Amino acid sequence: MLAGDAALAQAQALDAQAVQAAAARKAAGSPALNTGEVMNATTPDDWREPDPQNVVLMEIRPSATAAPQQVWMELAPRFAPEHAANIRALVRGGYFDGLAVLRVQDNFVTQWGDPGDPVGADNAKTRPLPEAAKPKLPAEFDTALAGLPLHALVETDGWAPLNGFVDGFPVAADPAKTPQGRAWLAHCYGVVGAGRGNEIDSSNGASLYAVIGHSPRPLDLNITVVGRILKGIEHLAALPRGGGNMGFYKPEEARPPLMSAKLLADLPAAERPKVQVLRTDTLTWANLLHTRRYRGGWYVASSGRVDLCSSTVPVRVTPPTAPVNP
Amino acid sequence: MLAGDAALAQAQALDAQAVQAAAARKAAGSPALNTGEVMNATTPDDWREPDPQNVVLMEIRPSATAAPQQVWMELAPRFAPEHAANIRALVRGGYFDGLAVLRVQDNFVTQWGDPGDPVGADNAKTRPLPEAAKPKLPAEFDTALAGLPLHALVETDGWAPLNGFVDGFPVAADPAKTPQGRAWLAHCYGVVGAGRGNEIDSSNGASLYAVIGHSPRPLDLNITVVGRILKGIEHLAALPRGGGNMGFYKPEEARPPLMSAKLLADLPAAERPKVQVLRTDTLTWANLLHTRRYRGGWYVASSGRVDLCSSTVPVRVTPPTAPVNP
Repeated sequence: MLAGDAALAQAQALDAQAVQAAAARKAAGSPALNTGEVMNATTPDDWREPDPQNVVLMEIRPSATAAPQQVWMELAPRFAPEHAANIRALVRGGYFDGLAVLRVQDNFVTQWGDPGDPVGADNAKTRPLPEAAKPKLPAEFDTALAGLPLHALVETDGWAPLNGFVDGFPVAADPAKTPQGRAWLAHCYGVVGAGRGNEIDSSNGASLYAVIGHSPRPLDLNITVVGRILKGIEHLAALPRGGGNMGFYKPEEARPPLMSAKLLADLPAAERPKVQVLRTDTLTWANLLHTRRYRGGWYVASSGRVDLCSSTVPVRVTPPTAPVNP
Repeated sequence: MLAGDAALAQAQALDAQAVQAAAARKAAGSPALNTGEVMNATTPDDWREPDPQNVVLMEIRPSATAAPQQVWMELAPRFAPEHAANIRALVRGGYFDGLAVLRVQDNFVTQWGDPGDPVGADNAKTRPLPEAAKPKLPAEFDTALAGLPLHALVETDGWAPLNGFVDGFPVAADPAKTPQGRAWLAHCYGVVGAGRGNEIDSSNGASLYAVIGHSPRPLDLNITVVGRILKGIEHLAALPRGGGNMGFYKPEEARPPLMSAKLLADLPAAERPKVQVLRTDTLTWANLLHTRRYRGGWYVASSGRVDLCSSTVPVRVTPPTAPVNP
């Protein structure tokens, strides 16, 4: 069976179970579950913990005098191994500490990092990279579909013949593209990419952007997507829009400070919050999608449908059990 | 010919002209036009001026001490005649002046108006309506497709069998639904709806919301959509998210002030900015979509595709030629 067919067959089987479960509730006279009830009924097996080597905790301030806000990002080395490794090296080398958010373009992206951005445009302002980080990386726009643990959605959104989730990341795919098929991270809300100049190999992860509006899918396959914001995207989306071209802040003093970036793996174990992402190969996930396709309560009409970019995979962050400063 | 087929045939004919124009440029050795170049080449005939009776100018402040920001909204009486008339009566009666933004829910909506909201939840706080405004209106969730001047997109996004634009508003449609077909305003970025309680006829336009995230299309056909933000949606999208349930501001003192709402028709003619919306039945519009489907410059891959909610129809606002206070 082709990789795409197998993924779709699995999705259809899980969806059929969710439909059956809903029908059984109805036959028993029980009201349909809503999204909150499905989430409240999750068990520990429904969640996975991302590798702490892939989780970055950033602190930003909306303005120089405002309180700090936490933004959690998960890197996707399965799709962008070179960029994930380089971003780890940048974070560990303190590269991002004390930098800033460079631009916020409404209904598009918030971008932070390299103050010489646009990439290479102003070398005098670029902060030197830590020794362990590479200045240039190959383009990592797509990967082989074969072998990817893709959990498909039954519906496609028209941007690709197949779509779904890998490790909670939104993925589009074209099973027929090459013998191995082609898959790529899709530019959905909260997805993070690496800014590049005109050359496709000009990104290094020092300049990153997150999607803050209606999914800009034409960016797909044009730039390396490195991960997604797990928590705190609302802090990036609510920043004042920059007044310059493409939403760059003018004057530069208006830039919201990026105070620090740390790897979860580098926090002492006792101080590490537990970060968990809902699995997408479970009946829980199928039930959750079902509640989004068929809504009750306030809704009088159901779309009978979800799409990739509105099916954000839930995340929960639990504070460390041990007090940080006992 | 069915209404849907005619709209699609017109879209395909215009698209074919745009494809031909692009091929002719290529054959002549000229570079492909980009979106900016298409916009710079528009002629006065490419634009329409909305009826000033349908244009509302709101002034908000992100906080009590911040500078005021302008937000322009166009009402859509073709789809929601009763709501449009009631909102006009509310605006003329000064209903919105001195109210506030009530909630901002990330990746969803910004809602303003009736301080008793959620609708009917707190009657003690509801501001009395002006005499000319009705407290209750019928649901205006959809209308007949037949007779609508729908300019279709060649592509559909999966949420409806047909989609496109009427007067610049994003519209989804189902030609087969009734003998007249069914059409409705789609919940794309910037679209404005009228908040309601559990009863479908419980909205009156005193509580309004604008979409500020990835299109929440499951709201379609569940609520009356009254128009869209023509200009200034970034001011609504950048407001701090409310800390309460559903993004309601807590404490209420944190609500961003809504200073005033006025009809463009009620401004003295000499003080009226000229508001224009790009027409969508023109070769200019087809050329614009073509530049979005096939991008050059920085892009190395083209999606070959647009979708309804990312194809926002351009708007321009020209300040009044006569000085306001000579």
